[in-house]
Amino acid sequence: MIEWNSLFSERVIDLKASDIRELLKLTIRPEIISFAGGLPNPKSFPVEDIFRISQSVLLNSGEDALQYTTTEGYMELRKFLAARERSVGVISTEDNILITSGSQQGLELIAKSFLDPGDTVIVESPSYLGGISAFRLFQARFETVPLEEDGADLNVLREILKKPGAKPKLFYTVPTFQNPSGITYSKDKRKELAEISYEYDLTIVEDNPYEKLRFSGDKIKSIKAYAPENTLYISTFSKVLSPGFRIAWVCAPKDVIQKLVVVKQATDLCSNAYVQHITYQLLLRGLIDRHIPWIAAMYKEKRDIMLDAMEKYFPNEVTWTTPNGGMFIWVTLPEHMNSKEIFPDALKENVAYVQGGAFYIKGGYNHMRLTFVYESNENIVEGIKRLGNVLRNKM
Amino acid sequence: MIEWNSLFSERVIDLKASDIRELLKLTIRPEIISFAGGLPNPKSFPVEDIFRISQSVLLNSGEDALQYTTTEGYMELRKFLAARERSVGVISTEDNILITSGSQQGLELIAKSFLDPGDTVIVESPSYLGGISAFRLFQARFETVPLEEDGADLNVLREILKKPGAKPKLFYTVPTFQNPSGITYSKDKRKELAEISYEYDLTIVEDNPYEKLRFSGDKIKSIKAYAPENTLYISTFSKVLSPGFRIAWVCAPKDVIQKLVVVKQATDLCSNAYVQHITYQLLLRGLIDRHIPWIAAMYKEKRDIMLDAMEKYFPNEVTWTTPNGGMFIWVTLPEHMNSKEIFPDALKENVAYVQGGAFYIKGGYNHMRLTFVYESNENIVEGIKRLGNVLRNKM
Repeated sequence: MIEWNSLFSERVIDLKASDIRELLKLTIRPEIISFAGGLPNPKSFPVEDIFRISQSVLLNSGEDALQYTTTEGYMELRKFLAARERSVGVISTEDNILITSGSQQGLELIAKSFLDPGDTVIVESPSYLGGISAFRLFQARFETVPLEEDGADLNVLREILKKPGAKPKLFYTVPTFQNPSGITYSKDKRKELAEISYEYDLTIVEDNPYEKLRFSGDKIKSIKAYAPENTLYISTFSKVLSPGFRIAWVCAPKDVIQKLVVVKQATDLCSNAYVQHITYQLLLRGLIDRHIPWIAAMYKEKRDIMLDAMEKYFPNEVTWTTPNGGMFIWVTLPEHMNSKEIFPDALKENVAYVQGGAFYIKGGYNHMRLTFVYESNENIVEGIKRLGNVLRNKM
Repeated sequence: MIEWNSLFSERVIDLKASDIRELLKLTIRPEIISFAGGLPNPKSFPVEDIFRISQSVLLNSGEDALQYTTTEGYMELRKFLAARERSVGVISTEDNILITSGSQQGLELIAKSFLDPGDTVIVESPSYLGGISAFRLFQARFETVPLEEDGADLNVLREILKKPGAKPKLFYTVPTFQNPSGITYSKDKRKELAEISYEYDLTIVEDNPYEKLRFSGDKIKSIKAYAPENTLYISTFSKVLSPGFRIAWVCAPKDVIQKLVVVKQATDLCSNAYVQHITYQLLLRGLIDRHIPWIAAMYKEKRDIMLDAMEKYFPNEVTWTTPNGGMFIWVTLPEHMNSKEIFPDALKENVAYVQGGAFYIKGGYNHMRLTFVYESNENIVEGIKRLGNVLRNKM
């Protein structure tokens, strides 16, 4: 009998299904009101548009759409994306674009291409789980920079960069409607971060999935707009079209894209051609960009309902962020409280969230991430009411 | 200015776009008759069935098909595949099945989960390019076992396994209508390989993309049927439905699947839900399995046309395999000839193939791989005629 555990590689031997993953399984029971997960509301999917465009793609270019594409991705889609990204200040051509199977693949290809075991990645604290897991897979060491209301604490970032020893390889940031905190970097912080990246030759990985889901505040340029040569920019159609499509992209300097393409070829040859064709045709006809304001309006309403309910039902000692867009509200409990310990009580009341510790390399137990986009408006109020009671009982 | 080459990881620093990839780019010019590439014939895609089923999936389960799925893959599809694989003697349940984004992702997840730098992988000689590239990405060392007409030379395999030192981690095989050679392991060799795997606790990676495209000879059980506990089995819908769908699967012991699932989660979260739903509905209605004999008949005709033309136009000194299925004929030139050197002459005559060296860790220059499935019947005859002339001029 083969003892499989003796055969796995060092990079995966200690990799286990995360607690979160196991907890999320509990939250899919139909009686649960779930503020956990990071799923878009299924009502946001433009099913009818996809229906019509699927037909048109198969009728007009079925043989191409069902064949292998190039590893780089469908050329017309890459050209369109290069042009479209000018709206956030990113100047690029199709040679700067690689289509990936979801943002997660972009993160993994970057981690695989940049990280030797023990290399340092700087992450925000808290930071997106999926980013941490991609970097951890390639045995990164982590340094953390705390988030403030207007973005990362850049003094801490400077201190990390000034330390003697091997230079950190990457700084990973979700600067707009961050997952999990909901905060957005100010223009000043974006500029300063760009300056730091030039001063220290720091490579920035800018993960930007939520930017188009803005409810309030002014549109803001991406960090890549300020540090174009040093930023590997990632975005996706998962939150504005369909996560099931797994269509995302990396926009980066040509030398980096060329390396990522060779790595992707050995990784999965190419991304799904059928949905690349569908996504391109939807974009070309303006159907995605016309649909986004409708999603944003639905999500804004849900955010407001959740914020109002929290005001009404949460104990006074609890605070939270008010995101200008995206999907998440970040809750801070009094320091002595632990959201992991409270979770079973919440589940008993059929309400779920993600415990804050999941987003920290260390600590963060007194936080919770709530998504406001998934549940019905009625369930949001009812769920927050229940969660308020659970918290009050624990105080 | 960041000097990107100084930042890439050791595993990718020397990874370059392969010669083959560059050469293949030349072969997509419309005037070229291409026996290169590994693309199915686009006429094999059941466009109308996919058209109808896409509609039905969106109408009946659009919200599920456009949402994230579990990392393991769509449950109904996994159950169906577990049952379907009994036809090649593989006994499994959905817990043994992981849906991947193409077979290449299965290979990469296995490589990533099993290989530390310097670990040994045993490959056939010649072997499939994509397998070699996935193992190379994780810094494998290679040992090679020559192929005979009825499968790998198992005496050589035993010698490798008897060597002192670290045990090889994996034996990678494409036992049925192999890419590139077209050969198929006999029943006896399958049994003996299974015995060896138990004797030496050898993990077998069985890559089986072509099995259902059989033209002649008896159906044969997979190697996994003989060594179920030791075999990681990979198959795909790329050759019998659509490579653009990127739907493949790994069938393996539960402990291995559980590890691969955690690794896939950090790699790309999940595979495309939309096409998993479409593939399942096509399977459920028997549309794929009813379509396969039609593809096989088309490919058999093309194989026969190519074999006849080779008989007629190739110099006497050249030999080739007669595959009972799949997509490839393997050509052996006299030992002093080098198919890489001949390639520019072939291109001048607007005909292309893949040079044999691409499939070897070392050597193999006097071979060429020809696919017989892609070109029209007329072009096959014309292309072989031209290639015959090129070879004759070089003799």
